[in-house]
Amino acid sequence: MPGLRGVYNILSTPFRPDGAIDEASLRRLTEATIGMGVDGITILGVAGEAQKLLQEERRRLIEIVMEVTAGRVPIIVGTSHDGTEATIAASREAQAAGAAGVMVAPPTFLQPGPALTRHYERVAAAIDIPIVLQDFPPVNGVTLSPRAMADLVRAVPAITTIKLEDPPTPQRTAQTLQLLEGRATIVGGLGGMYMLDELRRGASGTMTGFAYPEILVRIWRAWESGDRAEAEATYYRYLPLLVFEGQPKLGVAIRKEILRRRGLIDCAVLREPGPRLDDGIREDLEATLRALAIDDVYPPLG
Amino acid sequence: MPGLRGVYNILSTPFRPDGAIDEASLRRLTEATIGMGVDGITILGVAGEAQKLLQEERRRLIEIVMEVTAGRVPIIVGTSHDGTEATIAASREAQAAGAAGVMVAPPTFLQPGPALTRHYERVAAAIDIPIVLQDFPPVNGVTLSPRAMADLVRAVPAITTIKLEDPPTPQRTAQTLQLLEGRATIVGGLGGMYMLDELRRGASGTMTGFAYPEILVRIWRAWESGDRAEAEATYYRYLPLLVFEGQPKLGVAIRKEILRRRGLIDCAVLREPGPRLDDGIREDLEATLRALAIDDVYPPLG
Amino acid sequence: MPGLRGVYNILSTPFRPDGAIDEASLRRLTEATIGMGVDGITILGVAGEAQKLLQEERRRLIEIVMEVTAGRVPIIVGTSHDGTEATIAASREAQAAGAAGVMVAPPTFLQPGPALTRHYERVAAAIDIPIVLQDFPPVNGVTLSPRAMADLVRAVPAITTIKLEDPPTPQRTAQTLQLLEGRATIVGGLGGMYMLDELRRGASGTMTGFAYPEILVRIWRAWESGDRAEAEATYYRYLPLLVFEGQPKLGVAIRKEILRRRGLIDCAVLREPGPRLDDGIREDLEATLRALAIDDVYPPLG
Amino acid sequence: MPGLRGVYNILSTPFRPDGAIDEASLRRLTEATIGMGVDGITILGVAGEAQKLLQEERRRLIEIVMEVTAGRVPIIVGTSHDGTEATIAASREAQAAGAAGVMVAPPTFLQPGPALTRHYERVAAAIDIPIVLQDFPPVNGVTLSPRAMADLVRAVPAITTIKLEDPPTPQRTAQTLQLLEGRATIVGGLGGMYMLDELRRGASGTMTGFAYPEILVRIWRAWESGDRAEAEATYYRYLPLLVFEGQPKLGVAIRKEILRRRGLIDCAVLREPGPRLDDGIREDLEATLRALAIDDVYPPLG
Repeated sequence: MPGLRGVYNILSTPFRPDGAIDEASLRRLTEATIGMGVDGITILGVAGEAQKLLQEERRRLIEIVMEVTAGRVPIIVGTSHDGTEATIAASREAQAAGAAGVMVAPPTFLQPGPALTRHYERVAAAIDIPIVLQDFPPVNGVTLSPRAMADLVRAVPAITTIKLEDPPTPQRTAQTLQLLEGRATIVGGLGGMYMLDELRRGASGTMTGFAYPEILVRIWRAWESGDRAEAEATYYRYLPLLVFEGQPKLGVAIRKEILRRRGLIDCAVLREPGPRLDDGIREDLEATLRALAIDDVYPPLG
Repeated sequence: MPGLRGVYNILSTPFRPDGAIDEASLRRLTEATIGMGVDGITILGVAGEAQKLLQEERRRLIEIVMEVTAGRVPIIVGTSHDGTEATIAASREAQAAGAAGVMVAPPTFLQPGPALTRHYERVAAAIDIPIVLQDFPPVNGVTLSPRAMADLVRAVPAITTIKLEDPPTPQRTAQTLQLLEGRATIVGGLGGMYMLDELRRGASGTMTGFAYPEILVRIWRAWESGDRAEAEATYYRYLPLLVFEGQPKLGVAIRKEILRRRGLIDCAVLREPGPRLDDGIREDLEATLRALAIDDVYPPLG
Repeated sequence: MPGLRGVYNILSTPFRPDGAIDEASLRRLTEATIGMGVDGITILGVAGEAQKLLQEERRRLIEIVMEVTAGRVPIIVGTSHDGTEATIAASREAQAAGAAGVMVAPPTFLQPGPALTRHYERVAAAIDIPIVLQDFPPVNGVTLSPRAMADLVRAVPAITTIKLEDPPTPQRTAQTLQLLEGRATIVGGLGGMYMLDELRRGASGTMTGFAYPEILVRIWRAWESGDRAEAEATYYRYLPLLVFEGQPKLGVAIRKEILRRRGLIDCAVLREPGPRLDDGIREDLEATLRALAIDDVYPPLG
Repeated sequence: MPGLRGVYNILSTPFRPDGAIDEASLRRLTEATIGMGVDGITILGVAGEAQKLLQEERRRLIEIVMEVTAGRVPIIVGTSHDGTEATIAASREAQAAGAAGVMVAPPTFLQPGPALTRHYERVAAAIDIPIVLQDFPPVNGVTLSPRAMADLVRAVPAITTIKLEDPPTPQRTAQTLQLLEGRATIVGGLGGMYMLDELRRGASGTMTGFAYPEILVRIWRAWESGDRAEAEATYYRYLPLLVFEGQPKLGVAIRKEILRRRGLIDCAVLREPGPRLDDGIREDLEATLRALAIDDVYPPLG
């Protein structure tokens, strides 16, 4: 079966207090993420605030991550745009820069049908690397049924992976896999919140932002090696953090705050418009980390 | 401060295999739920499939639950309809039947503004019992900002409780409480998935469907008595089940399956249209319950 | 080809100033509408504020209209509910009361797929009269592609007519007809605003609320008899009124105001929540009618 | 009262058959549009397919239109982006290129509230030219009530014009103007379909795409000079075309086909994803233009 497998971390994009990309933090975060054993890295996802970057910034970000990675793990680049030409242009640039694949969500409000299929066909025809189809209605208002995803994959063989994020993800993963007949793998997302149950229903890993990627790696390695008890134990142990960090609309902000605490980035600020954490949630994050004794197990770096 | 406090269980509506309301199961479930120590019961919520019942069935269901309860705990009745007159009629019937309050969500697609305010004003004017404002966009497409909820409560003092369910619920609870200035309490929902963090941010309890209400009661009692460590420990222990059962769109179905396993209802069928569980999810439910050793702690009844 | 043809007027539901159904006005309006030459009448549509009526009121309304009509034209009854059982119950009652068909929109937010198909299958199995599938996203958040509609019709042969109202309606009518292969007719809606172009693309008429149904009848009769010039001339002549009355969200209110001016109903009030006309729009309505000299051509009745 | 007045044409973006911007057609179209007497031109709107252009293409398009216009009419530039920094960057570039103002729609799904206000505040602080607030839910899923728009204008005085496009536009225009207290003007859109009634309710003109801008100019001039009868007569005469071209989702494509027929652009192709006209709609367009004898009055150019 073609398609991605394992844990792909969607990289946060660190900014300096003045709002510019913090390149030093980006390098440090990339290096650390690789060091945590991920199978790959995805950049320019929603969790990387890609939709709020300028085109020049996106290019620069790709450049830096590619340079730091130096081929040690595959890099998937998000290239979603509302226009087909713009998606193609970004996808070609990603390929030229060394991307192992591109991640493409449907254009805003473009529901499944011939026009959506054509969008993916044209992107596929313009590049030689595989496409990850992103299923995440909150960003584009597009709902993809299992049947619609399977039809897209059949029409566009370059789609070898589906990042399935519209809940309930475990059962939808199983339903979609049945229709895919081996044409693509499915990975989860949503901050890993349902990771164990997604694996139980056939997911081949997860592609998500999470501030402790090594925990997802540990779950995946255990699962992959057949040690389901260890996978379950690890997932259950850290579930409070998965749930806390994975809060809809706030996840990107909480994650950056944790990355900052870990010493992986200097500043937790998000580009606007974006959610802001109040003091209360910072205290509750502290309480959650303390309850899990997570700083002992996974100490702050740097 | 006026408003509800504690754990209000949203009762599932049990059906017989032929689709009719299973009155015997309904009586058993009601009795058992009271026995678990809940502070109140809410009927005819979304989790009770109210929108799929006939008017006669809603009346009969109120009658039975009132009879079984016999005043031991307060009963809140969901009376949401798209028209004001219909909401008023249902609310008056609920009051006449002995309801302690009514739960009212905004009519479909009626966003905050004068017409929505007027809807609540007219309902309030027609009854003498308090109103629970339900904030749950998936059922009606209506998004309520903290400011919009606070404005509604100011305009309609009969709204003494907000059931806040649009995530991120903990931070929105805190933001809304600040604007409410003591005019109403806020309770959580969403199957209790964020209950601990909602309490941390000022929630006065939770009003939600969940197949082990006694777990939520234990969390609340510990929290209420100041034993936060016990509240945390209990929440963390059972979080895998809260997350599993609380899966968006599937929760009502998983919950009924658990209630069936516990012996509280005879048949787990839902009214159509509704989600269906496949065999895989039943196995994973089994695995989840086993991992939590929950059947030892909270044995199947009956 | 099975399916409805011609002009079906969606009857407004007249209320008295105190909010109760105005039965005398309802009888007068029904009689007048038949007198205008419509091919049929549809009751309990969105334009009839069905979603704001109590069950008893819906029953009474059916009874009155059936009695006044006395079989002179077919009556289609809207029976849309969010639950299948409730839809079936309403559909059976409609059939028992003498309905020629039922109009059923998809339940709220139930997008095309097996569950939606099953909803229609079960309704069809419970009655012996045909179903009109209503395609109108503003009421339920459901978008139906031409393919989805054709698939539903193929799966449920009792659906013999589609009331297609998601713009652009003319081209979508043509696209859907191509896929339907004669299994159903398509009629327009949207207050008749696009009626001419819908007919050009194959529509078999229109089923809509409009305060001068005789104008739509005249367009249809001309078109049907092959006198396209007359159909065009009539449509263009009255287009200012079709556009004015057909304003999204306000149409039901403007229509009632016109019906009141014509003497067909006593009071133009709508059930809440609903739009309200301000004085300015009443003046502009006056100006529009004056510009069309419509009161000379179609004088106020009564 | 500050704010725009008159007819601002939203320029279509002509492409060559190979998909690149057709610069010669763009120059011809710009020159012709100015020649039709418009009060201003808006580029990079939704009707200009801005969301499907590359950044370089947007820059080039601004450059060409500025060069051709040479200050004869003010140019408004659409600079909407999902991120504040990107919106600022585009707005500054527009200002530097000579724009008279920028048009900014809310970021996707960012409903009214402090974050949206802050977005506009930051854009306003970064430039010295006024902002046109665009109210058009289909592109971003954002609904703005009259109150929300008035609050935004009060908070951000640089917003001197609202392009109000969520129907019913005439009554909403009146309601919003009442709350604005002279702080901003309101112009219509929606292809001019409701232009007369928008003017009746206080609109200061229209900013919209339409293939015969001179018709809108004539309506506006008549209205402005107090000759309401002439304004009405012109609007009613051409209403069939306003309705036909203004069909939701198809308007941009129909407009380009007309511009091509008029000789103003060489090729009617749209960037993908986008609607496509079938042969039937082309025939009906022909019939509509013939019925209006429009090619005699406004002959094809070039």
